[in-house]
Amino acid sequence: MKCDETLRDAPVTETPKEDIQRTLNRLKRIEGQVRGVQKMVEDDRYCIDILIQLSAIQSALKNVGFQVTEKHIQHCVTHAIQNGEGDESIQELMTVLKQFNK
Amino acid sequence: MKCDETLRDAPVTETPKEDIQRTLNRLKRIEGQVRGVQKMVEDDRYCIDILIQLSAIQSALKNVGFQVTEKHIQHCVTHAIQNGEGDESIQELMTVLKQFNK
Amino acid sequence: MKCDETLRDAPVTETPKEDIQRTLNRLKRIEGQVRGVQKMVEDDRYCIDILIQLSAIQSALKNVGFQVTEKHIQHCVTHAIQNGEGDESIQELMTVLKQFNK
Amino acid sequence: MKCDETLRDAPVTETPKEDIQRTLNRLKRIEGQVRGVQKMVEDDRYCIDILIQLSAIQSALKNVGFQVTEKHIQHCVTHAIQNGEGDESIQELMTVLKQFNK
Repeated sequence: MKCDETLRDAPVTETPKEDIQRTLNRLKRIEGQVRGVQKMVEDDRYCIDILIQLSAIQSALKNVGFQVTEKHIQHCVTHAIQNGEGDESIQELMTVLKQFNK
Repeated sequence: MKCDETLRDAPVTETPKEDIQRTLNRLKRIEGQVRGVQKMVEDDRYCIDILIQLSAIQSALKNVGFQVTEKHIQHCVTHAIQNGEGDESIQELMTVLKQFNK
Repeated sequence: MKCDETLRDAPVTETPKEDIQRTLNRLKRIEGQVRGVQKMVEDDRYCIDILIQLSAIQSALKNVGFQVTEKHIQHCVTHAIQNGEGDESIQELMTVLKQFNK
Repeated sequence: MKCDETLRDAPVTETPKEDIQRTLNRLKRIEGQVRGVQKMVEDDRYCIDILIQLSAIQSALKNVGFQVTEKHIQHCVTHAIQNGEGDESIQELMTVLKQFNK
């Protein structure tokens, strides 16, 4: 995921195609899982089974979040630190980590 | 969401249609949000923006989980307690609460 | 942990001594772990090691929370359901589950 | 909190005294809160009140964790990136973020 140009005056780092594809594949699976739970709700399935599926989706989402976070630190935060703009980038990262952890 | 007949010999409680519809509406919105993030990833959007969307989906999922949990306690756990099968139903509930909280 | 008399007009259920002791033992261990992290901070230990200890304390706290939640459902919520006051007790439980899950 | 010398051959960065004191003050308050919950359990107080206190401690702990994480990224991870050892330090950070998020 490209670093935000406004934060950096250096050329932005493109995200490698395979990283994009890997994240997309995970999100497609999550989309399928959400539709699966919709079907369970329509079929008035047992609540516990529905909750188990919901927590599986939450774990999958968390993993996508960690994957994107790691890429962001490896590319954008590193890029900002190397260009003397680390503080702003780290603060931005912390804000989203706190939100992600609510 | 129906209580599981195998756990109870009493007639199962059907989930009111409007509860099912409310849960379905939420899950449809979540499905849309997941597709929205897929588009952001394809467009190689800034990671922080993607993470903010992912945490919004997590909150929405958590709320669906609480909604289903509340209905389950109101119907199935209450039904089990009133039929002298509370212990088993409570243990089952705690197992899924712990999983939901990982 | 006693059920709240104001919520129930029936005699409250005392918490068995061994349950109280088990919860106390866990909380004493957590107190020791917190003091341990204080020492690490004073000694300016490596941040990652401090974070690992903090997450161990979080897990221990979560387990105490689940233990108290389970007892509450087994005693107070069950007691309320059996006395026709289930709705209020379940709502109270859901409020604290949501807070516990933030 | 000092960066781990084994990971870096450059001189380690000492943690400013006021940062250490701020973290210590928070941990002392948490220690007091834990003892407060012990008293509530001994007095067999209402479970919901105990759970509310436990989740307050969890939030306080999480904030200490974020504070330490931010300092770590500002000092140690930045130091590693500037010394060409970013990958290892970022991987270590992600491992502890995942553990902190369980």
